Amino acid sequence: MSQLKVYDANTLDDFSVNILTKAGMGYEEARIISDTLIFAETRNIKSHGIVRLPVYTKRIENGIVNRNAKMKFLNSKAAAVAVLDADNGMGQLAGYKAMQMAISIARVYGVGLTAVKNSNHFGVASYYSMMASNEDMIGLVMTNASPAIAPFGTKTPLLGTNPLTVSVPANERKPVVLDMSMSTVARGKIRLAAQQKKEIPVDWGLDVDGNPTTDPNEALLGSLVPIGGVKGSGLSLIIDLLTGVLTGTSMPGEVKNITDMSGPSKTSHMFIAINIESFICLDEYKSKVDLTIDKIKTLPSKGENEVFMAGEIEQNLMEKRKLEGIPVEIEVIQELDRLAEKYGTKKLQHITK
Amino acid sequence: MSQLKVYDANTLDDFSVNILTKAGMGYEEARIISDTLIFAETRNIKSHGIVRLPVYTKRIENGIVNRNAKMKFLNSKAAAVAVLDADNGMGQLAGYKAMQMAISIARVYGVGLTAVKNSNHFGVASYYSMMASNEDMIGLVMTNASPAIAPFGTKTPLLGTNPLTVSVPANERKPVVLDMSMSTVARGKIRLAAQQKKEIPVDWGLDVDGNPTTDPNEALLGSLVPIGGVKGSGLSLIIDLLTGVLTGTSMPGEVKNITDMSGPSKTSHMFIAINIESFICLDEYKSKVDLTIDKIKTLPSKGENEVFMAGEIEQNLMEKRKLEGIPVEIEVIQELDRLAEKYGTKKLQHITK
Repeated sequence: MSQLKVYDANTLDDFSVNILTKAGMGYEEARIISDTLIFAETRNIKSHGIVRLPVYTKRIENGIVNRNAKMKFLNSKAAAVAVLDADNGMGQLAGYKAMQMAISIARVYGVGLTAVKNSNHFGVASYYSMMASNEDMIGLVMTNASPAIAPFGTKTPLLGTNPLTVSVPANERKPVVLDMSMSTVARGKIRLAAQQKKEIPVDWGLDVDGNPTTDPNEALLGSLVPIGGVKGSGLSLIIDLLTGVLTGTSMPGEVKNITDMSGPSKTSHMFIAINIESFICLDEYKSKVDLTIDKIKTLPSKGENEVFMAGEIEQNLMEKRKLEGIPVEIEVIQELDRLAEKYGTKKLQHITK
Repeated sequence: MSQLKVYDANTLDDFSVNILTKAGMGYEEARIISDTLIFAETRNIKSHGIVRLPVYTKRIENGIVNRNAKMKFLNSKAAAVAVLDADNGMGQLAGYKAMQMAISIARVYGVGLTAVKNSNHFGVASYYSMMASNEDMIGLVMTNASPAIAPFGTKTPLLGTNPLTVSVPANERKPVVLDMSMSTVARGKIRLAAQQKKEIPVDWGLDVDGNPTTDPNEALLGSLVPIGGVKGSGLSLIIDLLTGVLTGTSMPGEVKNITDMSGPSKTSHMFIAINIESFICLDEYKSKVDLTIDKIKTLPSKGENEVFMAGEIEQNLMEKRKLEGIPVEIEVIQELDRLAEKYGTKKLQHITK
């Protein structure tokens, strides 16, 4: 385990806004991007948190991401849908605008759907689905991603892990927030096992021949195991067809990884807002979500552990960390210190207790 | 293996229309219901085929399903969504009407969404998603179902297998048709293993304590394994929240199985049509789906087998069986013979070659 130091959420936020503006982003835009990073940190989705700041700034500086993107909604051909051309700008900005538009449409038409073309990595997906549930709507978000999963029956990773998130508002309880990729685990976990020279469970990775392997290095050369085999790889393909192909941005297999600086990543997303009030009395619905949560949490649990709803642990942590601060690995802080030096800004100060 | 006899698709269709009308359904309605059964038969989705005719007629006769259902669209509160009250009628009729409405809405607004309340088992889900792809739209359909899957961390089957289907049109190629439930296998497969006194794989079923079991009888008392563990059970819950709860029909756990004659099944569905033309030139899209299919089918395959797309084997079979007939197990035919006797109609004649 790495050593951790605890940082105030607002301090981390201001730091990353500062760095992003130094790297060339406008202030308002930096605030949105940073907000998604801090959202991820407080919810302990470390892979999409502040650790990404170095690669984001590198992409901005190299012009791989367009810092001056003129994002615009294309002339809409139908009232309940929109297409946002992100002009190869930051995915977070595209995601924020796109979900705002989907929510606005849903307020009038009952459902709103925004497809985003020419975008980039948008960070933590549930940030956007929760924008909808915060407005008493059901939010669904999906994105394509760089190749990781082999289509069923093949051994070539062509499809992305293609995350899907759905957020459903409750009344007194916390929203139900599902945020999942189509692989059994993230590649990062396999990479970590490789670094630690540990075996991986048999349902994490496949070797180059498409066979299960417990050797993380073989899995890194091969592909990730999709959930439910043919089902997970099928869902991943559907998400490619609903994002990259539907927006004309990219074909399956063409999305570049965030670390690939050879050109635009050609990422696409889909944002859907469903206006609950168009179907049922909002209070009735949210009360029934509460009842559902209470029912599930009081079911007999496996091994006497507390039963947690999708997103509940993250929501609890979020509230705690906003008050008490965010633990960050010392290696990550060292990287952030280097950014601070480079841009001539103040280094982060941890909380001393 | 059961003995099989081959029946002409039209003969089977006319037979089941006949039986359904004798049981009390109107002719036009019987045609729609029968069409879904023959669709399932030709695609070899036997569990949703003609084998269901006895239970459907029993439900109709007992008044558990309302044969005179006055299905109506409730006053719409927003233009791109609709709510259909199925009045406890046959799910197939509700599904057909609901997807037609979603398609009509999507033609104007780009996306159309119909929620169905107070419905029943609607048979094979891809019948409805393919209604959309046949009209050059992307169709998504989900339904809740009787309890089978335990919420993550619990051992009580509260959630249904809650099928999800997506159908995407291609140009020269066949549509991509994903049709999946949230369990690794259907309960029917476990029941079959129990009958045959065979062990089941460790990832099919859980015993009453929520632990994996290879004993099919223990699994039948327990619950089904969701795909990807927390992910599949999360998706199942989301589908409950988007169907039964959103329409105010039922809470998770309240949907009755098709064989339960104690009252209305309280099933709900969601139908979504996405109009491709609202996003991109239709020909461009469908050509790119073709290219995607060709790309995947020519990837190096595992074990030198042909690579099949989601729905491709079913589509091939459908074409073949429409021409050459449908093999049906002799036990199923015996049950259909009993129906014919009961209603005084002609028994089925198989094809002699």
